[in-house]
Amino acid sequence: MADGGAARRGRRGGGGAARRAERGTERVEFARFAERRLPTIDALSPELLDVVEAGAETVLEEIGVVFSDNPAALDRWRAAGADVVGERVHLPKGLARTLCATAPEEYEQIARNPARNVMIGGDRMVFAPVYGPPFVRDAKGRRYGTIEDFRDFVKLGHQSQWLHHSGGTVCEPTDVAVNKRHLDMLHAHMTLTDKPFMGSVTDPARARDSVQMCELLFADQGGLAGRAAMTSLVNINSPLTCDATMISALEVYAEAGQACILSPFIVGGAMAPVSVVGTLTQVLAEVMAAVAYSQLVKPGAPVVFGTFVTSIDMNSGAPTFGTPEASQVLWGAGQLARRMKLPFRSGGALTGAKLPDAQAAYESANTLHAALTGGVNFMLHSCGWLEGGLVASKEKFVMDADQLGVIQRLAEGVRADPDALDAIREVGPGGHYLGCAHTRAHFKDAFWKTRLLDYKPFESWEEEGSRDTRALAALRVEKLLASHEAPPLDPAVNEALGDFVARRKAAEPDMAY
Amino acid sequence: MADGGAARRGRRGGGGAARRAERGTERVEFARFAERRLPTIDALSPELLDVVEAGAETVLEEIGVVFSDNPAALDRWRAAGADVVGERVHLPKGLARTLCATAPEEYEQIARNPARNVMIGGDRMVFAPVYGPPFVRDAKGRRYGTIEDFRDFVKLGHQSQWLHHSGGTVCEPTDVAVNKRHLDMLHAHMTLTDKPFMGSVTDPARARDSVQMCELLFADQGGLAGRAAMTSLVNINSPLTCDATMISALEVYAEAGQACILSPFIVGGAMAPVSVVGTLTQVLAEVMAAVAYSQLVKPGAPVVFGTFVTSIDMNSGAPTFGTPEASQVLWGAGQLARRMKLPFRSGGALTGAKLPDAQAAYESANTLHAALTGGVNFMLHSCGWLEGGLVASKEKFVMDADQLGVIQRLAEGVRADPDALDAIREVGPGGHYLGCAHTRAHFKDAFWKTRLLDYKPFESWEEEGSRDTRALAALRVEKLLASHEAPPLDPAVNEALGDFVARRKAAEPDMAY
Repeated sequence: MADGGAARRGRRGGGGAARRAERGTERVEFARFAERRLPTIDALSPELLDVVEAGAETVLEEIGVVFSDNPAALDRWRAAGADVVGERVHLPKGLARTLCATAPEEYEQIARNPARNVMIGGDRMVFAPVYGPPFVRDAKGRRYGTIEDFRDFVKLGHQSQWLHHSGGTVCEPTDVAVNKRHLDMLHAHMTLTDKPFMGSVTDPARARDSVQMCELLFADQGGLAGRAAMTSLVNINSPLTCDATMISALEVYAEAGQACILSPFIVGGAMAPVSVVGTLTQVLAEVMAAVAYSQLVKPGAPVVFGTFVTSIDMNSGAPTFGTPEASQVLWGAGQLARRMKLPFRSGGALTGAKLPDAQAAYESANTLHAALTGGVNFMLHSCGWLEGGLVASKEKFVMDADQLGVIQRLAEGVRADPDALDAIREVGPGGHYLGCAHTRAHFKDAFWKTRLLDYKPFESWEEEGSRDTRALAALRVEKLLASHEAPPLDPAVNEALGDFVARRKAAEPDMAY
Repeated sequence: MADGGAARRGRRGGGGAARRAERGTERVEFARFAERRLPTIDALSPELLDVVEAGAETVLEEIGVVFSDNPAALDRWRAAGADVVGERVHLPKGLARTLCATAPEEYEQIARNPARNVMIGGDRMVFAPVYGPPFVRDAKGRRYGTIEDFRDFVKLGHQSQWLHHSGGTVCEPTDVAVNKRHLDMLHAHMTLTDKPFMGSVTDPARARDSVQMCELLFADQGGLAGRAAMTSLVNINSPLTCDATMISALEVYAEAGQACILSPFIVGGAMAPVSVVGTLTQVLAEVMAAVAYSQLVKPGAPVVFGTFVTSIDMNSGAPTFGTPEASQVLWGAGQLARRMKLPFRSGGALTGAKLPDAQAAYESANTLHAALTGGVNFMLHSCGWLEGGLVASKEKFVMDADQLGVIQRLAEGVRADPDALDAIREVGPGGHYLGCAHTRAHFKDAFWKTRLLDYKPFESWEEEGSRDTRALAALRVEKLLASHEAPPLDPAVNEALGDFVARRKAAEPDMAY
């Protein structure tokens, strides 16, 4: 615990509930985050982890990591004792790990509604939605995403019981100029929900805009004052390359005390060796280099050990999802992150399927379960992802979001039941438990409840049109969008945010990059 | 190890391959069973398991278990030291556990093709298909199953790479008289595949027929000679009741050295207390009573600790599948079975969905993953189950069977890769691995391959009709049924089996029970 985590941990108890009561916030049934009481699967032996860790140190020293187009980064590395050759940074063994040690084991990301603050790291799971798709699919087919779609996804997320986080680029609003999208996206996350969210990483100036908008959003709480109000996604360009754009965004965020996920994005067999151990070795080297750099920028800056790995169809070159090898990498990366005492990001409802059909569900469930048993702390793409991340789907969003309840309940572990024997005594051989005292006392919260799936009698289901999950999901999407209410926001804050967006938009011409 | 397991374990090494080579058997790519190298999830603390075990002993002593319509069973119990009151058997604390100790920790179930013999227990997983549905669903809708459907399922199973076992009542052949179905079903399992299978449990006479047909099937190998050629499903009528029909079948099988799964069948909240701990307490008491009884019939008889548990929708009373509570019971039951050193049966591709859609896949995957992490040794219903077990689906059969490859690969654990560092050295920062030496050496078996799911480019997929998983599955069903070839069978054995079926059918009128 490098960052006052014990004090932060102390805040969790009744603080959220107390603040919620003060503010009269509704929807108290929403969980702030999942508390994990389930053991993780340690799929790799300690000996194999030692091999991976030693291999990563060799990679860092001998092969090195490129920090491209970033002379300031190279200067920082030289000053820290690295051997810089051109843009390639060679880290003597042990240096990266020493630098990483100042990164906090867990951190709090604040939301404008303090009842929705999340703790990231330790034994918590935080679920955030799909990130990045340029396309949206609905019953009519596939089309480019718009800012209206974006707002719809934020509204769905706001009303999803098991989703703790509003995410970032839930879809690309392609009808807004590239250099202005971040303003509309952040404005949507700030006004249509009071859950926490992510900042822009596509340009350091946009990262600065994100920080400034957060200062405005939290103005009535005294501003950020160094607190993390964003957890943003900084991808590493595998193999072993840290591009200037994303690393510059990391610099902005680290200096402002904002959190970043440092995440290799790997199609296995193309961007990393075609083996679990090889991929893990490269992932660890990449994450260690990026985390170490974040701590050079600002010791104690909150960061997350990220891992996004898919397999590849070696015949067609298509990325594949929900595969056993991707789950094995996730498990191993979780073990490595825990050994480094860093929060861990991976997983998601990932699929290569083009429709929200059985393939989509099998593949999504495969990765959701790997994330559960792999000890993921922050799960991006928890719901709404289709077609290898090219497509966001509102139907799939509500389908996956419902399943997140299964994952959260499993994470919470098995509760004791001191009355169990009395129930068996009461009913006895050949009886039934439907009306017994124990059942009457416990049935309300005994079982997780779906808000989507069908358990009707066959005849009713047939009469109602033999609807499949996708059809039921479309109805739920419609209902949730119709019932969305933006949570109350201080009018002065609202106006300041609107003014900021308008001013920044007016200051630049529309651009396509 | 109570039953010469060490010797049996020794057989596994090269024996199967050697025998396969001798016989010139094809399809060597089929795995006999999954070898588990993945740790289990121990969801319940040792303290909670102690509570459950103590509770089960109290249930057995104080409440007791009913053995209905079975005076011989009550006599056996009296002789063993139980306190029998009417049909209710009270077991002094410790008696059940002492009796259970003679049951083997693992056993071999032989197949007529020795290359397909399975080991049940220990660190193996054996997958068997859906069991019991009266209905079959295809693109045309839902209808009663027939013997032709039954044969289709056996053919599909024969050709499923990851399915180790042909199962039992893959669907009810409702066009055959109830008292003769077992003959046609066994005949299909014996002639259309050479994988192992299950025997009839609906009447002790039918169990005896099953044993006799196995003696005929193995005539050219010297008959059964005490070896287990069937693993049959004996359900316990929860709560705490062992019906005469199933227990009489158990008696036949135990005396003949044939294996039985002793399995409470529980809709949680109706047939067991509405809590995980309460359900586990009752499950353990029931299984201990049944296993103990099997060992009274014949010490050393091979048995499996079975658990089939679903949740219930407390509003409608409908059973629900793939729920977190059912997974928690599975995890706990696995821990209890391992503490008893018994093979464990649970899991399956269970779902309440009426169509092979996203609900079906999410729910099935939820239980498949719980079975993987819960250490299941024998998984019935691994593929083909729909609508709470009322319906068997050929499309879902091939969909689930494909996913069993994911589960098996995950079970097998992570392999070392001594060449990983060289691959990273070869490619370096900013390169790609698609053509590197390491990839060329390893790509063929680096990733599990689907035989069903879609990863085509969007444009090809759209041109081919934007097919969903169900449509692709229907095509695969058609292809597999067309390409099925019955494995060669000694003509004398074939004739003897046919004669036996004909003679037994002629000996009785058709009956509906």
